[in-house]
Amino acid sequence: MTYRLSQLAERFSLRFSGGADPEIRAVATLEGAQQGQLAFLANPLYRKHLADSRASAVVVAEADAAHCPMPCLIAKDPYVAFAKIAALFEPITTAEAGIHVSAVIAANAVISPAASIGPFVSIGARTRIEAGASIGAGCVIGDDCVIGADSELIARVTLVTRVRLGKRVRIHPGAVIGADGFGLAMDAGHWIKVPQLGGVVIGDDCEIGANTCIDRGALDDTVLEEDVRLDNQIQVGHNVRIGAHTAMAGCVAVAGSARIGRYCLIGGGAGIVGHIEICDRVMVTAMSLVTHSIVTPGEYSSGTPIQPSRDWRRNAARFKHLDELARKIANLKPSAPFQAKDKE
Amino acid sequence: MTYRLSQLAERFSLRFSGGADPEIRAVATLEGAQQGQLAFLANPLYRKHLADSRASAVVVAEADAAHCPMPCLIAKDPYVAFAKIAALFEPITTAEAGIHVSAVIAANAVISPAASIGPFVSIGARTRIEAGASIGAGCVIGDDCVIGADSELIARVTLVTRVRLGKRVRIHPGAVIGADGFGLAMDAGHWIKVPQLGGVVIGDDCEIGANTCIDRGALDDTVLEEDVRLDNQIQVGHNVRIGAHTAMAGCVAVAGSARIGRYCLIGGGAGIVGHIEICDRVMVTAMSLVTHSIVTPGEYSSGTPIQPSRDWRRNAARFKHLDELARKIANLKPSAPFQAKDKE
Amino acid sequence: MTYRLSQLAERFSLRFSGGADPEIRAVATLEGAQQGQLAFLANPLYRKHLADSRASAVVVAEADAAHCPMPCLIAKDPYVAFAKIAALFEPITTAEAGIHVSAVIAANAVISPAASIGPFVSIGARTRIEAGASIGAGCVIGDDCVIGADSELIARVTLVTRVRLGKRVRIHPGAVIGADGFGLAMDAGHWIKVPQLGGVVIGDDCEIGANTCIDRGALDDTVLEEDVRLDNQIQVGHNVRIGAHTAMAGCVAVAGSARIGRYCLIGGGAGIVGHIEICDRVMVTAMSLVTHSIVTPGEYSSGTPIQPSRDWRRNAARFKHLDELARKIANLKPSAPFQAKDKE
Repeated sequence: MTYRLSQLAERFSLRFSGGADPEIRAVATLEGAQQGQLAFLANPLYRKHLADSRASAVVVAEADAAHCPMPCLIAKDPYVAFAKIAALFEPITTAEAGIHVSAVIAANAVISPAASIGPFVSIGARTRIEAGASIGAGCVIGDDCVIGADSELIARVTLVTRVRLGKRVRIHPGAVIGADGFGLAMDAGHWIKVPQLGGVVIGDDCEIGANTCIDRGALDDTVLEEDVRLDNQIQVGHNVRIGAHTAMAGCVAVAGSARIGRYCLIGGGAGIVGHIEICDRVMVTAMSLVTHSIVTPGEYSSGTPIQPSRDWRRNAARFKHLDELARKIANLKPSAPFQAKDKE
Repeated sequence: MTYRLSQLAERFSLRFSGGADPEIRAVATLEGAQQGQLAFLANPLYRKHLADSRASAVVVAEADAAHCPMPCLIAKDPYVAFAKIAALFEPITTAEAGIHVSAVIAANAVISPAASIGPFVSIGARTRIEAGASIGAGCVIGDDCVIGADSELIARVTLVTRVRLGKRVRIHPGAVIGADGFGLAMDAGHWIKVPQLGGVVIGDDCEIGANTCIDRGALDDTVLEEDVRLDNQIQVGHNVRIGAHTAMAGCVAVAGSARIGRYCLIGGGAGIVGHIEICDRVMVTAMSLVTHSIVTPGEYSSGTPIQPSRDWRRNAARFKHLDELARKIANLKPSAPFQAKDKE
Repeated sequence: MTYRLSQLAERFSLRFSGGADPEIRAVATLEGAQQGQLAFLANPLYRKHLADSRASAVVVAEADAAHCPMPCLIAKDPYVAFAKIAALFEPITTAEAGIHVSAVIAANAVISPAASIGPFVSIGARTRIEAGASIGAGCVIGDDCVIGADSELIARVTLVTRVRLGKRVRIHPGAVIGADGFGLAMDAGHWIKVPQLGGVVIGDDCEIGANTCIDRGALDDTVLEEDVRLDNQIQVGHNVRIGAHTAMAGCVAVAGSARIGRYCLIGGGAGIVGHIEICDRVMVTAMSLVTHSIVTPGEYSSGTPIQPSRDWRRNAARFKHLDELARKIANLKPSAPFQAKDKE
């Protein structure tokens, strides 16, 4: 499959600049591109590769067009434009509709004839799989689940019970949705388990990364609104609610009953404690811990900067006595006495 | 299944207050409850929902009883009481005893006829599954394992080798117990693997969350004493020992050979380095890193508070020079010279 | 299988000290050893167990030999020597060559007759499994993968697509290699997915822990060079490159397009942000966050020390105003005015 650059410009409504109209056979990075390949420049870190790139063409922002030694497509957001173009070159293998002979399916589960069920899949009682949905090898779907139209469970995904997925939800291998929330009460020196009677509701167009876990609610449901994007290895506790279009990078942990707004961006390894609220359009930087509600949009951080350990150890030792230090300073005059006197 | 409130009071030895004796059909949160539902108030954060709740009754502590607009059950610990009552309303699906036709079982494995083995399960040599145990779909049980009576592996759990579970152990999907510990030695510029010859021993009534990993010991065993409760995505290294009744929230990482006491509470995302000891009844707050042994019960923390990133960056930049700052302060007099003279 | 201590000395070229030549039947820790067992002393923390150990012999460094009450083997690196000796006592179960009857294999996949394919394994189109490779129960291998000779996928490993493993690679249960990288672009208020067209290349002798995830590249490949060792629950983003012989402890997160050098040691729970470079021989301590490129070998840290929470809270509150504090200090004279005058 090849396209003339001018065809891509037209198809995606992009401006086309540069004399030649090369044939594009594939997409690539600026650094790795060969002839016949289209690259892109979105992150300024990689601008240094523009001059030497062997790409036949490049997708750039207006400001970079003049510096392109090769023909270019000019986009308001080059990353978005590139994403759309790259999709033309993605090898798509659509799973065939039908149920693999090895699958084990409850008698009262309802499977659309237009759904695809892979090998070694088991599907529980009263579960419904809608048209165009694809359940990859080794998935375990429990009782009372719904998998919406055109959703895709890549492989080895577990939906434990009472999990309802919207349309076009994509879940990567190893994810576990709907396991028991971590509800415990200490009774006479032993833990007793608090029953987890709720479910999980996942909105349309959500994506859930590999080995990510989303527990089901204790009483009400755990909820992801539409278009929430979770990377790998994320932990979402019971009764959490995540607003539409929020994205979380890998290894984030969200404790039970936290409510997160819409259009939030949560950095990798960040933590959010339970029973707090984060408003819309909050960014949390990597490995920060949010310990209280946030009511103002903006970027938030915690932690200390990385340093050579020798320096860090000296500073960290002082942190242990920072309050004492601050009290000492409070006892000091803000300037030398003679000067202070002069001012009086 | 419905109960009169007075029946619940009697069954769980709770005081019953309020004129009516409503019929309870389900349990719910204060906020979400409808008529016929029983709610509870344990976390003071939710007290604000008491007045407006449509619950037909509520489980409360003595101090809150007077503020209940509806009938209530008065409990010393409302959360414990509610957990016990909620269990009455939990839909229980008990797996039928027997071995699914698709399961692959070593000839010398010993499976109780009162155990349940699901589809796509494989069970290794010399492994024993006791009465009432339930092995869900897609579990892989290796050689030389024991699964105690009434233990439940929900689905897709892996016990690699030499894993012995006590009675009533519950393991959630994706958990991996008994994988090789991370034992490496650098030899002439290459890593060599240190054989991991031990196993894992899990006490009665332990619960292990989804996608949690517990490595087997290098020489001795990795040990969880009874009633240990691990949430999802936890990593427990080889030869760790975790004392009875200790609970860990999601994403905790415990490095090899750490020893953790009884009745500890480890917050989400916390880390515990290797070869240290933590005494009984230690609480570690979320995302704190324990770098040395703790010999005194109590609560421990590390990290810095979350702030708007603009403020945080300024403070973090100062942290990098905190030792220098402290040295400067040490060179300053604690009060103005004239006052100091007066005191002399 | 038993060995005379002198046989072990000869076999591994170690010095042998102590009158007797005990028969060694097994290996053990100093503390747990019984008669007939060989222990080792590598970590000085455990030196206190040397005098009381019931081990019949012990592997030690030169400096400890004089303090051994029992015969010993003297090694330059006792841990390395012990690792090699322990391997003699490891029970090895080699999977038999052949394909389990339940496996589902694409017609054009190429499986060496000397490879072993376990139960409930599925293998995709154009995938090649080389001689001596072992694919454990429940693994899902997608399209266009290569599994090199003598590699071992213990059980329930997923290779999504375009994953190429070298020789002698070992992957533990639950690992997911080659899932979609987390590539998103915001377009008119909705996320659009950036196609992930690359693959993953894993060098010879790499080891990948349980539930670890390595995403495939967006355009180029994600690469682990030879002899990289990853512990459990690690997240490696798309287009990351990890240099040869680098080891990472559990729960590390590496964001997309980071490049990590050779012989690095990354502590448990550490984070590495995207698009940065870390040079060879860098150590990062546990739970530190690397936010910029590192060009000098050495050890790096971030965070604050663990403290009783009461003390920590006071210090943390001061951290929020550290910049202000530092400004105050800058306004103070470095010594008392009279002394300062004297110096002038």
